[in-house]
Amino acid sequence: MSILLRNISFLDIEEERIVDNIDIFIEENKISKIDKNLDVDASEIFNGENKLVTPGFINSHTHLGMSYFRNYADDLNLMDWLNNEIWPIEAKLNSEDIYYSSLLSIVENIKSGVTTFCDMYYEMDKVGDALIESGMRGVLTRGLTDIDGKGSEKLEEIDKLYNNYHNKSNGRVRVYPAPHAIYTCSEEFLKEISKRAKERYDGIIHMHLSETLTEVENCLNLHGMTPIKYVDSIGMLENHIIAAHCTHITDEEIDLIKDKKFYPVYNPSSNLKLASGFTPIQKLIDNGVSVAMGTDGDSSNNNQDLIEEMHIGSIVNKAVEMNEKAVKAIEILKMTTINGAKAMGYDNLGLVKEGYLADLAIFNLNSNSFTPRNNLISSLVYSANSADVSSVIADGKFIMKDRQVLRLDENKLRRIVNERWEDIKSR
Amino acid sequence: MSILLRNISFLDIEEERIVDNIDIFIEENKISKIDKNLDVDASEIFNGENKLVTPGFINSHTHLGMSYFRNYADDLNLMDWLNNEIWPIEAKLNSEDIYYSSLLSIVENIKSGVTTFCDMYYEMDKVGDALIESGMRGVLTRGLTDIDGKGSEKLEEIDKLYNNYHNKSNGRVRVYPAPHAIYTCSEEFLKEISKRAKERYDGIIHMHLSETLTEVENCLNLHGMTPIKYVDSIGMLENHIIAAHCTHITDEEIDLIKDKKFYPVYNPSSNLKLASGFTPIQKLIDNGVSVAMGTDGDSSNNNQDLIEEMHIGSIVNKAVEMNEKAVKAIEILKMTTINGAKAMGYDNLGLVKEGYLADLAIFNLNSNSFTPRNNLISSLVYSANSADVSSVIADGKFIMKDRQVLRLDENKLRRIVNERWEDIKSR
Repeated sequence: MSILLRNISFLDIEEERIVDNIDIFIEENKISKIDKNLDVDASEIFNGENKLVTPGFINSHTHLGMSYFRNYADDLNLMDWLNNEIWPIEAKLNSEDIYYSSLLSIVENIKSGVTTFCDMYYEMDKVGDALIESGMRGVLTRGLTDIDGKGSEKLEEIDKLYNNYHNKSNGRVRVYPAPHAIYTCSEEFLKEISKRAKERYDGIIHMHLSETLTEVENCLNLHGMTPIKYVDSIGMLENHIIAAHCTHITDEEIDLIKDKKFYPVYNPSSNLKLASGFTPIQKLIDNGVSVAMGTDGDSSNNNQDLIEEMHIGSIVNKAVEMNEKAVKAIEILKMTTINGAKAMGYDNLGLVKEGYLADLAIFNLNSNSFTPRNNLISSLVYSANSADVSSVIADGKFIMKDRQVLRLDENKLRRIVNERWEDIKSR
Repeated sequence: MSILLRNISFLDIEEERIVDNIDIFIEENKISKIDKNLDVDASEIFNGENKLVTPGFINSHTHLGMSYFRNYADDLNLMDWLNNEIWPIEAKLNSEDIYYSSLLSIVENIKSGVTTFCDMYYEMDKVGDALIESGMRGVLTRGLTDIDGKGSEKLEEIDKLYNNYHNKSNGRVRVYPAPHAIYTCSEEFLKEISKRAKERYDGIIHMHLSETLTEVENCLNLHGMTPIKYVDSIGMLENHIIAAHCTHITDEEIDLIKDKKFYPVYNPSSNLKLASGFTPIQKLIDNGVSVAMGTDGDSSNNNQDLIEEMHIGSIVNKAVEMNEKAVKAIEILKMTTINGAKAMGYDNLGLVKEGYLADLAIFNLNSNSFTPRNNLISSLVYSANSADVSSVIADGKFIMKDRQVLRLDENKLRRIVNERWEDIKSR
């Protein structure tokens, strides 16, 4: 199985440039050659005229199972929204509900050029099934809490998930534990997860951190320190942390994490919509921190469109900093590609580069967003929208062509999700 | 000529609700009847199943002629960007360049459900020709400056434009004067435009106001007062003002304008991207001010997608106010419909209502953004994107059907704009 992308343009993140008129040869699931006029024998030739290839985007924080709650309880703050709206109805979801929601969310991700997601939810074996079916790459992280007294059950569950799914489907699936947050996990539970992660999961964990001022204030009251200092105090900064939000990360905390395997994941739409605040992205970049980016769940975003996140994430920070040069387009593109890959624990993902995994988004340049043909790096962040993504390759295979998601029937999924939601509400 | 939208849902802005399973009958260019099971004889019947009708959106501040500068000079502040990048290259544009750019911008507007624009630029007769050709409704406002010593020439030009275009094409075209800004017009010139507007243009003018801190500081230095107090001091608040931006409007100024015909136009993407700041939208709403919304030009946005503006405009203000209930979805929808209509000087536009002009956007509810079918008002603002707009009616006629803009060839326009841009750069 091989694909030749003939005479195409691509985004070279490392050199911060666009390379035109090039051939990209994909063998099995890797990019094997990038050069002018390649003389190779490919099983499929893709005409790259008026097309731009970027690394497939990496959605580093989402909750795929939450499609049902899209536009369900808006204009509420995080704690009201979780306690009074989301958690009561979420408790009614069954595993099949989560499977179908995950499939619909995966369709949305693919249609905005995403090839890897990092999902935190429950019934993660169903999310794993959806992932395998879709052809995407994904990181399954089981949300772990012990405030309900069921901590040890969940730890067994994540081990089982690891045994059944980790590295499955040609390595497209990875499994890591996800302590939900410092306010839903006891200190002992956090320490136990941290220890187990080091023993078995390459040290990697995924958690919500420093999302709201309430979280910070409660942490100060309970522990006498801010959330990231708190997780440091219990040894967790020895882990590799995929740290969703970090909206209220302090200067002192930035100093603490900047040389560690700590990857803040910026979710601009969700942070703005829930009035959580503005994440100091430029300061993180200036300190050499690899910031990744995510959509968060449909319930707080309210979609899975990472290209829209890129636009919002860039421009909002310019206004926050009162500096039009803050969080430039290329920085945003690093966040959704190579930084996301590092956050996920990959060292061969997130670049269009020989030897890297063949996960690619292909944009149609014959669109209004790219007319006239000026700075294409700007175009991707400031003017493009998800409808400009024409095709997507994951793990060396097309999973979307000409806007058609190939392995999933999105019409059918919409119908099923609508039907199931009526049923969920009546339970 | 009549159209029956059969068994459709519509957004009722006045009652802040969605009405389902209704028939909407359009005769000539007006909505003549809205009721269940209408028994009428229509020349065209449109199947409304899984469709949602909203008022056609009103883009109350744009510069259609600026397509060429999309993604051309990014990551610069307003004054650097205008003085060093935009104005030198803009001086090279000829009237045909502006005609084709306007047509491409009009395509973008239609594709995000916009049926009325308010354009401020020059060579406005060409913009008028583009407008008439497209089938949209539009307000042509000639940007007026006298810092180049050519003020009186431009005043003659706007009168000529008025004679040739105002109320043309079944009333689809209106013409108003547009003093560019307080920093590009002398006091005498502003007074003269204000006087002429009252004599001939229903008092209406369109201008940039209080966009940046630099503008405010310079105004304080020159006139000892903030920009809106300054225009008041020279009698201009007796005019009806379409006031683009108002990013730095003060509490004192809000008091001054709140009972006047003063319509701030919010352009979130542009204000954020140029690091101009955050407009106090909720405060304006709380004071009963009718805020409208615009995209601004492609050079600072970098697209003409008003649906994206709605999303950004709502969520960014929640974070600014640290209040998740700030600038709710319905408020944003008012801004792009009825408030825009008032700002444009219309009293029969911006609602889906009997007797109103038949300018309508039709959304496809069988899309991911609207799945599951929860709060459709939230959906329009928080999850929808322009690809969800399936058809558009302006002045009682379809101008887009199934995403095809009917009267313009967008492929051809993209080619022409790319070719002309190469030529402009070489002049």
